[in-house]
Amino acid sequence: MTDIFEVPIPDNDLLDKADQLRLASIKISQTNDNERIRALNLMADYLEKNSRLIIEANIKDYKKAENKGISKALLSRLKLTKEKLSLGIEGVRKVGDLSDPLGQIQMKKELSEGLILERKTVPIGVLGVIFESRPDAVMQISSLAIRSGNGVMLKGGSEAYFTNLEIVSALKKGLEESGFDKNAICLLTSRKDSMAMLNLEKYINLIIPRGSNELVKFIQENTRIPVLGHADGICHLYIDNEVNIEMALKVALDSKIQYPAACNAVETLLIHREIASDFLKKAIPIFKSKDVKLIGDKKSVELGVDFEANYVDWQTEYLDLILSIKIVDNVEKAISHVQEFSSKHTDGIITNNISNANKFMNEVDSAGVFHNCSTRFADGFRYGFGAEVGISTQALPPRGPVGLEGLVTYKYFLKGNGNIVDDFSLGKSVYTHKDL
Amino acid sequence: MTDIFEVPIPDNDLLDKADQLRLASIKISQTNDNERIRALNLMADYLEKNSRLIIEANIKDYKKAENKGISKALLSRLKLTKEKLSLGIEGVRKVGDLSDPLGQIQMKKELSEGLILERKTVPIGVLGVIFESRPDAVMQISSLAIRSGNGVMLKGGSEAYFTNLEIVSALKKGLEESGFDKNAICLLTSRKDSMAMLNLEKYINLIIPRGSNELVKFIQENTRIPVLGHADGICHLYIDNEVNIEMALKVALDSKIQYPAACNAVETLLIHREIASDFLKKAIPIFKSKDVKLIGDKKSVELGVDFEANYVDWQTEYLDLILSIKIVDNVEKAISHVQEFSSKHTDGIITNNISNANKFMNEVDSAGVFHNCSTRFADGFRYGFGAEVGISTQALPPRGPVGLEGLVTYKYFLKGNGNIVDDFSLGKSVYTHKDL
Repeated sequence: MTDIFEVPIPDNDLLDKADQLRLASIKISQTNDNERIRALNLMADYLEKNSRLIIEANIKDYKKAENKGISKALLSRLKLTKEKLSLGIEGVRKVGDLSDPLGQIQMKKELSEGLILERKTVPIGVLGVIFESRPDAVMQISSLAIRSGNGVMLKGGSEAYFTNLEIVSALKKGLEESGFDKNAICLLTSRKDSMAMLNLEKYINLIIPRGSNELVKFIQENTRIPVLGHADGICHLYIDNEVNIEMALKVALDSKIQYPAACNAVETLLIHREIASDFLKKAIPIFKSKDVKLIGDKKSVELGVDFEANYVDWQTEYLDLILSIKIVDNVEKAISHVQEFSSKHTDGIITNNISNANKFMNEVDSAGVFHNCSTRFADGFRYGFGAEVGISTQALPPRGPVGLEGLVTYKYFLKGNGNIVDDFSLGKSVYTHKDL
Repeated sequence: MTDIFEVPIPDNDLLDKADQLRLASIKISQTNDNERIRALNLMADYLEKNSRLIIEANIKDYKKAENKGISKALLSRLKLTKEKLSLGIEGVRKVGDLSDPLGQIQMKKELSEGLILERKTVPIGVLGVIFESRPDAVMQISSLAIRSGNGVMLKGGSEAYFTNLEIVSALKKGLEESGFDKNAICLLTSRKDSMAMLNLEKYINLIIPRGSNELVKFIQENTRIPVLGHADGICHLYIDNEVNIEMALKVALDSKIQYPAACNAVETLLIHREIASDFLKKAIPIFKSKDVKLIGDKKSVELGVDFEANYVDWQTEYLDLILSIKIVDNVEKAISHVQEFSSKHTDGIITNNISNANKFMNEVDSAGVFHNCSTRFADGFRYGFGAEVGISTQALPPRGPVGLEGLVTYKYFLKGNGNIVDDFSLGKSVYTHKDL
């Protein structure tokens, strides 16, 4: 998508779709918990009923992509096996099992006699989701949207054209049978529409991009709609001087190699100078045996690291078996490095010194700050959220892994019996501000 | 400010200031509750000590503004009397009395044995506040920023140049005496810098504009930094058929005339057709006696309203003694009108019919939905928040009146004893996901 650098104006056809979606989202916002659970189960039922059609459509997409010479990695993400589809369908039902994020009373107070303020969670409205080739994302995202009472406009990768059409058709049948407006899920299929979506700020309340860093950056720079997500995931692990070297090594390895293409994999290892020699003596052969390319500052090269790092390395998310290493004087220097280069996703410290651990965790302003564990735990499922729409590295909430909670907002309900502000100005009424 | 339509690149001097502010904000984020309360009291003390200097500076600003022929409304907002200053200083101490928004544990759970996840509130980082001529805003905003552990970059109106300098100088002395880094409050004085601020996305985490709709709109359209606030405040009041007409009239009057220039004043009155004639018979003479110009749809003109409304009226925030009136068939039509024209600030219904009240409050997606009370209650002080940085009409939180709670975010703290993700993949460890 990086070849498109202008955001087209939405045409009338897209505006019509957006308006139908907006109206459907209002209807779905008024449904109750049981109705939404039932809708999810019916959506899952129709995915099962239409499994054959979906798999056939996927084979068609796959063949087309193969002929186009698309990369192996993309092909493997595009491929929807029976097993993957079953897991996706199971996922839809599981989202139904999560507790209702709507109607939660966050605040209830009496402002004055007979004047009661409540703050309750409500759906955000319409979500706009742009994702690359994985067709299973359609099921996951649609179920999270419906569970939280939102409408959703989806734009998937063009490689998955036929698969996405079949999946969405099944989901809409489920919605219809449950009495919901099927327009609550809207699939866009053209590239032009997917970019014009960024100009639908009157219809879409939150954009969730799921794809490459380039896609996310492009979206962040080209829309006024709030964007939930992150571009870079430049995570750090600092190994302090008071450590168990075996534990430090185990955590460092897991943080790098357990799944190097993940955003929560570590890109830079910072090592206290007092421990650097002992640590690297053990670490270098192990990392090498796992095919990890090590790139370090001068000091670490002196201690056996093969390649010398330049400034750009500290700013790079390798997403690969490459790790940059820097030797630092103390925890303060480690914190400064993290503050300068972290993408504010997840940064960790390994130490037995509680005071250093607290200092690091308090002063590093990332969505996740970890002590004596792998950065790979930064994930909605591992945090116990049941499902995740993405991980946000922005300063404002929702921050970190975002589950259903991030797909709701709140509004204030105020109920009175004819109360007016002027009575308070004149002293005829008084504020009590009692929590209820 | 509407005459400037390009956002300049920050120069090195501004970048230096921003970097000092960023470092100071990290230091202040590490202070404890008592230290921040003490700092606020010392800030208030220095404002008191420097009262004479501040008032003299204000007289200088006032004379200059008067000579320039600035409007009376602006002059009155610029004027800082002894009483206004005392109230401002008292306000600073009161912010110290509010409970600490930082370090609140929002979530605590065991992910697995020995692996504990906590979500705690932390400061946002650096706030950027752009406001028009009122110099008392400097005291209020700075105290809210310091209370919540944030740094703040301020840009006030050029008319208040000398006053703002004196106030900020006193505030910085208070910060210094309390051992805080005085760079945590940074005042910009040139228009060029204030606009370049919008390009400081690496340094500023949240922009809070306080001023005209045009200022807010300009800022929203010209920065990638999240903006807290609202441009228009187009609030509605719907008078249903099952009402006590006296109560409806009292609430309608208060919503319009108690302070017509406020964002929470009502701009459009929707009236059920069955009650329209009776209501308007009483309302028209009363509104006229209060100098309110009434503009209505055809039906309401037939019932005695003087001026006929056009499409633009439904989209206009008059901020004045002008009220547009529309007669509707039922609560559904009232809701549709609100959904189309509301700026999502505050919309209310007057009815004795609970089912209609709930329908209206649930289906209208505004930050505040009110039943049988004046829209003028939409305010942080009236909601009991103690202080307010503004009212947000966006879909995502913070929404509605925003107090200290809106100036903090959260991060996830994960503490383990060497836990790695691979052990869970291999089945050597299991997730327990127990709430603690």
